[in-house]
Amino acid sequence: MTPNVMPKNQRDNLKNRARMLVSCPDQPGIVAAVSRFLYEHGANIVQSDQYTMDPEGGLFFIRIEFDLENLDDRREQLKADFSVVAEQFQMKWSINRASRKKRLAIFVSKEDHALLELLWQWQAGDLEADIAMVISNHNDMRALVESFDIPYHLIPVTAETKAEAERRQLELVLGKVDAVVLARYMQIITPKFIEHFPNRIINIHHSFLPAFVGGKPYAQAYNRGVKIIGATAHYVTEELDGGPIIEQDVQRVSHRDNVDDLKRIGRHIERTVLARAVAWHVEDRVIVHGNKTVVFS
Amino acid sequence: MTPNVMPKNQRDNLKNRARMLVSCPDQPGIVAAVSRFLYEHGANIVQSDQYTMDPEGGLFFIRIEFDLENLDDRREQLKADFSVVAEQFQMKWSINRASRKKRLAIFVSKEDHALLELLWQWQAGDLEADIAMVISNHNDMRALVESFDIPYHLIPVTAETKAEAERRQLELVLGKVDAVVLARYMQIITPKFIEHFPNRIINIHHSFLPAFVGGKPYAQAYNRGVKIIGATAHYVTEELDGGPIIEQDVQRVSHRDNVDDLKRIGRHIERTVLARAVAWHVEDRVIVHGNKTVVFS
Amino acid sequence: MTPNVMPKNQRDNLKNRARMLVSCPDQPGIVAAVSRFLYEHGANIVQSDQYTMDPEGGLFFIRIEFDLENLDDRREQLKADFSVVAEQFQMKWSINRASRKKRLAIFVSKEDHALLELLWQWQAGDLEADIAMVISNHNDMRALVESFDIPYHLIPVTAETKAEAERRQLELVLGKVDAVVLARYMQIITPKFIEHFPNRIINIHHSFLPAFVGGKPYAQAYNRGVKIIGATAHYVTEELDGGPIIEQDVQRVSHRDNVDDLKRIGRHIERTVLARAVAWHVEDRVIVHGNKTVVFS
Amino acid sequence: MTPNVMPKNQRDNLKNRARMLVSCPDQPGIVAAVSRFLYEHGANIVQSDQYTMDPEGGLFFIRIEFDLENLDDRREQLKADFSVVAEQFQMKWSINRASRKKRLAIFVSKEDHALLELLWQWQAGDLEADIAMVISNHNDMRALVESFDIPYHLIPVTAETKAEAERRQLELVLGKVDAVVLARYMQIITPKFIEHFPNRIINIHHSFLPAFVGGKPYAQAYNRGVKIIGATAHYVTEELDGGPIIEQDVQRVSHRDNVDDLKRIGRHIERTVLARAVAWHVEDRVIVHGNKTVVFS
Repeated sequence: MTPNVMPKNQRDNLKNRARMLVSCPDQPGIVAAVSRFLYEHGANIVQSDQYTMDPEGGLFFIRIEFDLENLDDRREQLKADFSVVAEQFQMKWSINRASRKKRLAIFVSKEDHALLELLWQWQAGDLEADIAMVISNHNDMRALVESFDIPYHLIPVTAETKAEAERRQLELVLGKVDAVVLARYMQIITPKFIEHFPNRIINIHHSFLPAFVGGKPYAQAYNRGVKIIGATAHYVTEELDGGPIIEQDVQRVSHRDNVDDLKRIGRHIERTVLARAVAWHVEDRVIVHGNKTVVFS
Repeated sequence: MTPNVMPKNQRDNLKNRARMLVSCPDQPGIVAAVSRFLYEHGANIVQSDQYTMDPEGGLFFIRIEFDLENLDDRREQLKADFSVVAEQFQMKWSINRASRKKRLAIFVSKEDHALLELLWQWQAGDLEADIAMVISNHNDMRALVESFDIPYHLIPVTAETKAEAERRQLELVLGKVDAVVLARYMQIITPKFIEHFPNRIINIHHSFLPAFVGGKPYAQAYNRGVKIIGATAHYVTEELDGGPIIEQDVQRVSHRDNVDDLKRIGRHIERTVLARAVAWHVEDRVIVHGNKTVVFS
Repeated sequence: MTPNVMPKNQRDNLKNRARMLVSCPDQPGIVAAVSRFLYEHGANIVQSDQYTMDPEGGLFFIRIEFDLENLDDRREQLKADFSVVAEQFQMKWSINRASRKKRLAIFVSKEDHALLELLWQWQAGDLEADIAMVISNHNDMRALVESFDIPYHLIPVTAETKAEAERRQLELVLGKVDAVVLARYMQIITPKFIEHFPNRIINIHHSFLPAFVGGKPYAQAYNRGVKIIGATAHYVTEELDGGPIIEQDVQRVSHRDNVDDLKRIGRHIERTVLARAVAWHVEDRVIVHGNKTVVFS
Repeated sequence: MTPNVMPKNQRDNLKNRARMLVSCPDQPGIVAAVSRFLYEHGANIVQSDQYTMDPEGGLFFIRIEFDLENLDDRREQLKADFSVVAEQFQMKWSINRASRKKRLAIFVSKEDHALLELLWQWQAGDLEADIAMVISNHNDMRALVESFDIPYHLIPVTAETKAEAERRQLELVLGKVDAVVLARYMQIITPKFIEHFPNRIINIHHSFLPAFVGGKPYAQAYNRGVKIIGATAHYVTEELDGGPIIEQDVQRVSHRDNVDDLKRIGRHIERTVLARAVAWHVEDRVIVHGNKTVVFS
């Protein structure tokens, strides 16, 4: 695979594109206030999605993509101005530039399919992110990753070295990446690590959660005799396999499929689901609310 | 089936709910103008979906659901006021009350599955419409339809009586219904009839259009050896099976399925697809643009 | 709905069609012995499906559809002859005539969708069964069921009357039906009832099992924030929602769907999945092995 | 990507596995004759699928996987013996060893996704084939392919050189490969080339055939406003996009997806569908009959 790959999507036309995410208690006038604010600042709304959890006193979520001339120079002022509107409506909010791609660290163990799909989509220009590094407890995928000119860090993990391994991982990623992707990384992430990346660690679990929490989900699925298997991408929280679900997908299986067949079929679902979840995350399409997600896909 | 069925969804809480559909050339400030207008009239936006065909000078579409106190009394004034905004942006637009359910005429021939699904969903309260009448060129479904307390009109159609039959159909429906649903009505609708209901006649075609236009699509599909069959709900235009597509769905088949199997599997797809398309139409979720639809589902 | 409905599929051409189901320990020569037996008896194999759980000493399953002249007169002799082959290979086996439709009792409570789908498919000739009776703990669906000329038995169930109610149910069904279908019957079936119909009571559970076992699965699904919901048809065993799964299906949902939306979407999945499972059961397509099913669909 | 990749599936346990494909006019006794033949030769049937096009005088198809001790030494004698049975029933038939993997030539132009999926599945041990060579009219994928230690042949094609190019292609593949895979090879294959590989050239067409035959199917789909797009893998015949369909799949799209989005979504379908079709072909799961396929998947 040639190392000097350049994403096909040149992003030039996106240099003035911004994405605003807002959540706040619902009340009349929010959309009017936000859209008037943007209009008066000369922005053009390109795309807007909104969702009200319950018209009567529930929560309001909105995602707006807008174009603004000279976005780079004006964004700090824009944010300062918007904080006035935000305060009035008790908003949690963010405004991100589309041109400023999120940096990812990908954690893997020995299985390559989830990583390969991310690399392939990144190379094809379909994943709007910078893959800053790959970290693994094994050396198996070094050659593959380095052929993409992406740094590969081997950090072995044993029961004794787990704390030290985590210290080294944090040293590598803190301040260097925006999010961590666990692409079939078969180690538990500690609460200490998680608190540095709240709702910014994406894991792929190889079952249709909440069915088959924990280890060996394909063996569990085989033993239960299910007719459909699935995979789940979710944000990592302290509760094992219990964090907010971003995306799930499934595929039909039959009595003819043994555990190895389920794994093979499942690999395809896992890589597809994880890639979709990561794409939505880096495109600012996901808002976490409690233990659930609002996804403006 | 008990005749005095009442839709479960009592709509009481929707008596102040309105739906606005707008399409116009894109330019900055549309959302700001519309949402400010609604805010200043005391309306609360409950749901909003928008789509811009191309940020640079394309077309802009928006669907807004809002609540307004005393909607019934104030809607004429609201429309009058909005026409000023609409003119400024060259909008095509409509504002409909959610509580004013659309009236439908359903046309059938001898196959009952598409009709049955609509009746079932209507009875379950999932279809927000009034079924004003069923018109058929056969008498087969009279007992079924009348058991729902829905008027059934038999209008036989032969080559000689086609013009007269159409005259009687129009007499029944003109001014009485908002839309016509062809639930496997196996007769060609004439341009004259169509012009009375532009983009308001919904047909279910028993193939994945544009594959297998015309007659006997399941036999065509069988002969071509496709591995997936489908159905298509579309607005009727003068071009046979060529109107704007509202919804499609498919199902996997195999070499084991003969033409009768395809028909049986297809019936399930047809009734599902037609019911979805009709639901979207009566909930003002479909905007036709050229020969395509924007569906805010 | 007209009462004098006649299934469209006239079955005349199936009067000589038989279905053989066999399971036994795998060993060389089984297919040869069975097919030679059928050939020597003048039968023509129309369809055959087989599955070996593990080539080395596992279990072997086969389903054969064959045509035999004068099947009605010759089937007792055929069975007697086959028992010799069966003994040699330690087979569990059955031979059923396609023309002898299985008789079903359908149990319902207040929700009509699962029942309606079965009635509709039966009326359309797609369900090869006789619906012998409907039993309910409520009177809501009497008119509907009786309009199909199907007997409707009201047997109320309370904590105090549960034992007596079951006694009355058994009195109605024992010796009268081949299988019991729980079409959203919201009562627990006791072990005593189950032992009369081992692997012949089919339940529809309104979740993608084993996720959301027990009550209010749609509320559970909503609270967990899943992106896909499902339904599961299974044979009833003593373990609640734990019996052999026959069929499952799913549909995508989003954050926009509240619990009522999940129920509405779920109804569509439930009725489809239950109807498929019942069809496979009555067509002798399901073999139960341990807590799993082999489905020759 | 490390070049010394070894398929995970070691095939040792398959060295005695054979696959028999048979098609012939239906008549009683075929299964009996074949299974008796295998039993008497000491073979154990592991898997068997059969299909009769029409019980009364139609065509009969069967695929049998069996294990036979010392298959390598005995297969010539086995074939000689079976030809007697085959003649009696006018069979078209083949017996292939599972351990003898089919050799493929993959043709590509500039798009890499379909090729990458095949390489990835091959590397993962999921594609039971030897990729003997990649032939392209461009040099873009040389580094990628050679990193897998697979020979890469550049054969430019222009209107003037087309005949000469084909001569060179045939020189490379004749006698060297069992099948040719067109993994988005954007050139027409001539009848002369096709006659060397009847039903052994697999193409991926980027539409749900027979919709959108010919060039630019995604633009055609966009203009028609379809709600679902698809891809089709088929054997290449002289009729453009008209050969026997092996596999199809689809994905839902919406008005929000422009032509580029359709292409991006479509790439995912194309690579999945092509990989499935190639896998079935190399595992002897496809029988062509007329312009249709029987797929024992």
